[in-house]
Amino acid sequence: MNIELHLKVQDLNARYVQAINDDKLEAWPDFFTENGRYRVTTAENFERDLPLGMIYATSRAMLRDRVRSLRDANVYEAQRYRHIIGSPLIEPGEGRAVHAQTSFMVARIMHTGETTLFATGRYRDHVVLDDGGAASFAEKIVILDSRLIDTLLAIPL
Amino acid sequence: MNIELHLKVQDLNARYVQAINDDKLEAWPDFFTENGRYRVTTAENFERDLPLGMIYATSRAMLRDRVRSLRDANVYEAQRYRHIIGSPLIEPGEGRAVHAQTSFMVARIMHTGETTLFATGRYRDHVVLDDGGAASFAEKIVILDSRLIDTLLAIPL
Amino acid sequence: MNIELHLKVQDLNARYVQAINDDKLEAWPDFFTENGRYRVTTAENFERDLPLGMIYATSRAMLRDRVRSLRDANVYEAQRYRHIIGSPLIEPGEGRAVHAQTSFMVARIMHTGETTLFATGRYRDHVVLDDGGAASFAEKIVILDSRLIDTLLAIPL
Repeated sequence: MNIELHLKVQDLNARYVQAINDDKLEAWPDFFTENGRYRVTTAENFERDLPLGMIYATSRAMLRDRVRSLRDANVYEAQRYRHIIGSPLIEPGEGRAVHAQTSFMVARIMHTGETTLFATGRYRDHVVLDDGGAASFAEKIVILDSRLIDTLLAIPL
Repeated sequence: MNIELHLKVQDLNARYVQAINDDKLEAWPDFFTENGRYRVTTAENFERDLPLGMIYATSRAMLRDRVRSLRDANVYEAQRYRHIIGSPLIEPGEGRAVHAQTSFMVARIMHTGETTLFATGRYRDHVVLDDGGAASFAEKIVILDSRLIDTLLAIPL
Repeated sequence: MNIELHLKVQDLNARYVQAINDDKLEAWPDFFTENGRYRVTTAENFERDLPLGMIYATSRAMLRDRVRSLRDANVYEAQRYRHIIGSPLIEPGEGRAVHAQTSFMVARIMHTGETTLFATGRYRDHVVLDDGGAASFAEKIVILDSRLIDTLLAIPL
């Protein structure tokens, strides 16, 4: 096991969920490569190898559009989210890339204070390192445990 | 602190809960040594030093039997589970062994999409390394915070 | 990234929440420096830069008083708590100090077995190392996601 690589992915994950938790959505696309892919699907669909998820983006520009829509719709500010993620499981990929799987739980905190488990699942990530050693997502597949997807899943996960 | 040892236990833990989360129960016994012990108990019983838990197995073979029963009863497939675990707290044991304590939360995701906190507690593990450096559980005590144990705790925790 | 420093903060965090989870409240003040500051506030107040939180202590002695009150009021023993925390995000501070941010979820487990998400948020910590390399909190700000704070937040978080 490459310790430094492991901590690098762990750090990328921690910064990624912090940006979402802190409502810094505009920073969210920057965790992806220029042509980074982002997909949200269910475990059931993923296991059946159904290629399309509920949400699919294939570039940073598409992710930026998505953030802009969320801000326009004012849908995100109404509540807070808190991600807690596990330790990533890492497998070496080609070249300067790794595959990582990470469990997550997301709590939603309403204005009323009501706190519920909003989503659980795992990330299936393809992480690449640039020449300077900085890590970003070439692909992130968000695989939800539940089959029933809240419309609010429009928010970054 | 031995960094490599720490990451080794963290990795064992991550693979262990991934196998359960991914419904790969047949792989579950392989995380234990041949005579590995697995016990589920409550914090209250544990603190009173009551030796027996609700569930007790003293070999990989017993764990395999348990998985077979679960598959026959078809009890596991009806819902999904998602474990999130903390960072392990490690103390050196004798020889190539360590004691580790790790907090966990388990969410249960029903077919209806309903997601609840199913179980919380801590693992009290005795981890051994074989000659090749591979880690496995010589003992895993699952100490549940709740005194009331759902019958479904038949599933691996 | 300094790997050893990262693991040191991770270990401090893990021991801190274990002490609380194990109801070893008397050990809680010892995770702070002699003049360590402990504050509980809401994300809303924190973002508006409102300096005072619901709870504020500026020394280990004040934290000890707090634990004594909790024991006298017998308020803590009625239920159990389980913290799960994320990986800390670290920035170097002055000298032998670091700033760390860590997400947390706390579950409350009632005597009836009922388990709920009690609190979520993040720690904003100032961690210092003494000459022997031991880490403790010079400051811990507990920033809660919810605006509505349960009176039971008197317990250490």
